[in-house]
Amino acid sequence: MRILLIGAGGVGGAFAAIAARRDFFEAIVIADYDEARARRAAEADARFTAARVDASDPDSVAALAREHGITHVMNAVDPRFVLPIFDGALAAGADYLDMAMSLSRRHEAEPYAKVGVKLGDEQFAKAAEWEAAGRLALVGMGVEPGMSDVFARYAADELFSSISEIGVRDGANLAVHDVDGNEIFAPSFSIWTTIEECLNPPVIWERRREAVDGGWFTTEPFSEPEVFDFPEGIGPVECVNVEHEEVLLVPRWIDCERVTFKYGLGAEFIGVLQTLHRLGLDRTDKVRVGGVEVSPRDVVAACLPDPASIGPVMTGKTCAGVWVRGTGRDGEPRSTYLYHVVDNAWAMAEYGHQCVVWQTAINPVIALELLATGAWAGSGVLGPEAMPAQPFLDKLVEYGSPWGLMEVPER
Amino acid sequence: MRILLIGAGGVGGAFAAIAARRDFFEAIVIADYDEARARRAAEADARFTAARVDASDPDSVAALAREHGITHVMNAVDPRFVLPIFDGALAAGADYLDMAMSLSRRHEAEPYAKVGVKLGDEQFAKAAEWEAAGRLALVGMGVEPGMSDVFARYAADELFSSISEIGVRDGANLAVHDVDGNEIFAPSFSIWTTIEECLNPPVIWERRREAVDGGWFTTEPFSEPEVFDFPEGIGPVECVNVEHEEVLLVPRWIDCERVTFKYGLGAEFIGVLQTLHRLGLDRTDKVRVGGVEVSPRDVVAACLPDPASIGPVMTGKTCAGVWVRGTGRDGEPRSTYLYHVVDNAWAMAEYGHQCVVWQTAINPVIALELLATGAWAGSGVLGPEAMPAQPFLDKLVEYGSPWGLMEVPER
Repeated sequence: MRILLIGAGGVGGAFAAIAARRDFFEAIVIADYDEARARRAAEADARFTAARVDASDPDSVAALAREHGITHVMNAVDPRFVLPIFDGALAAGADYLDMAMSLSRRHEAEPYAKVGVKLGDEQFAKAAEWEAAGRLALVGMGVEPGMSDVFARYAADELFSSISEIGVRDGANLAVHDVDGNEIFAPSFSIWTTIEECLNPPVIWERRREAVDGGWFTTEPFSEPEVFDFPEGIGPVECVNVEHEEVLLVPRWIDCERVTFKYGLGAEFIGVLQTLHRLGLDRTDKVRVGGVEVSPRDVVAACLPDPASIGPVMTGKTCAGVWVRGTGRDGEPRSTYLYHVVDNAWAMAEYGHQCVVWQTAINPVIALELLATGAWAGSGVLGPEAMPAQPFLDKLVEYGSPWGLMEVPER
Repeated sequence: MRILLIGAGGVGGAFAAIAARRDFFEAIVIADYDEARARRAAEADARFTAARVDASDPDSVAALAREHGITHVMNAVDPRFVLPIFDGALAAGADYLDMAMSLSRRHEAEPYAKVGVKLGDEQFAKAAEWEAAGRLALVGMGVEPGMSDVFARYAADELFSSISEIGVRDGANLAVHDVDGNEIFAPSFSIWTTIEECLNPPVIWERRREAVDGGWFTTEPFSEPEVFDFPEGIGPVECVNVEHEEVLLVPRWIDCERVTFKYGLGAEFIGVLQTLHRLGLDRTDKVRVGGVEVSPRDVVAACLPDPASIGPVMTGKTCAGVWVRGTGRDGEPRSTYLYHVVDNAWAMAEYGHQCVVWQTAINPVIALELLATGAWAGSGVLGPEAMPAQPFLDKLVEYGSPWGLMEVPER
């Protein structure tokens, strides 16, 4: 296996650090628009080399893949670049993995009721080409989507006889404090992307609505607020519906009645995003301020600490998981949360990467290892839930970062 | 009486519109840094002329006052220019009025417990010079401070035998809606100034603390939140302590135990200000964004509608008043709110100025009329509560904008 990793940012860097400890591949070419950044990430292992790539150009991606005899293209950049990398990989005859799918565009007339172009639609539209070429595009293979989809498949295969709802629930108790011990507002992920994600219309799937738009529909942002009690000391966090890939992936492979994604932003963070929107500070078009023009959203990002820099001063844990409700194998009602928790202190000490990017990066490394060993195989455009779950979950344990399971009390 | 009005902005323009209907003065010279703006305001009346002035330069103010034989200098600009205008007026042998006092500087070691340089300190320090010259500086003569101080004096003279607390309470139900009827976030006053005012340490005065700093002390921003039920349909609004001139003025002339100022910002607006502060978007120093440098607070202001432009699309009423608690003239406990409400629709129809600036501007016009008739007189640096209240309140009625009084039920 010869891997082309595109993107040497936070997640790409953690991917390289995790992969360096595994022996399932022959070589990784780490490519970035900023070649110096690629070179720094490539220092981690003798099997790594660095290159420059323009991820917005399928020809640049294909040429680099052919030059290095690449078998698998690993996309670790911003979702704006999904399609050129996806197309470039197929052109070069390589398999492809990503951690976020092609972007959505809202329904023009009824954005908060109906779906327009959905997440991943532009990738699934090309599924026949991938199948015809005998190549695999394994899409949404990070933590969420990714590990969450594997949990959903495991629950359907092993724990439940019928499923009423598969609800991804993501929460954390991460905090950053200043030198005086006061907590400061410092998101562990890009505020630019978070605004984009959280202000898009959230998407939900229901089987009973399958006759209209295949069962997918949208709501107002921050809909259906709910407090979910996360495990391992994280505790209760306010969660709201957010547009996310699992809702588009899970219903294609798993038999259930409803799929949701709720993000544990917490009441404070939701309030911040709503205020930014209310004041127009989420806008990306430029405004004139004195003699210059700036995008307000860029100003917000510039005022906050760089998420890549806060790992050493952050404390707490992050949790990804899936809450499955339905009927268990014994015929009794069952409500189970399958989850994976990473403590930032552990990720920093063990890998030198903060927990949120580390928890994202481990999943495509495991997926590539399973593809290398043949435990996972396929062709076309497939989600993680199209693959058997048990080998993946065994690898999580083998990599030293086990998953967990808890029954959720009825309220 | 020959008046020099410095500042032809929102309040200056409304001052000119109100004064144009009165006959107590001979001439008003309207001066602004932007002479074209002064000329537009001067079109309202044949007794008005326009001039250019540099309000930051006492010599420019004094020269203009001497040139036009000015008897009264009316300061209607930003409080940053209080001292040069105040000094320029005295140098030219004129009386002086303003609507906000010289600025405070926080206590370096304990900003949220002790006062540093207080509002007006730099003006009161020169009181002997004004007295010696036989000239009057009537400071804080807008609506708050101004009308509120007159209310306090009236309560002490006419309604109470002893006063436990004089608490200014300012609230409104102003709203701005877009073409679809959705309420938009559009403050009726400069967000830049509001941030400055609300994030300064609030000041409180208590007689029992008089041995330390004369009884003045500070708290954390937004302290002592309280819901006050405003009259004339405005209803309950959340109010918090804010630094304001009345707390510095009232204890100098009125016998009471405690003086506070609470601003009815409302829970939503307080949340917005706290969020801006938490994200560093209230900062005035510049940050680098892409290739340019901007002050985040300027970006926030640029994203919001211009307060001067929203009068025609704003609805609702604004209320200024003083809540006085103590023992009434009958020896019984008394709790009374003395107030003045302006409906924006009325102010726009009657004067073409939005209610917040109109309600500010009427007070110095009345004060100048009372000085012209001799109903008010004095020398030195005096607050509005140093003058008899009844003639002022009678003029409010005569001007067609009566004040009100309500007993506040005990909670």
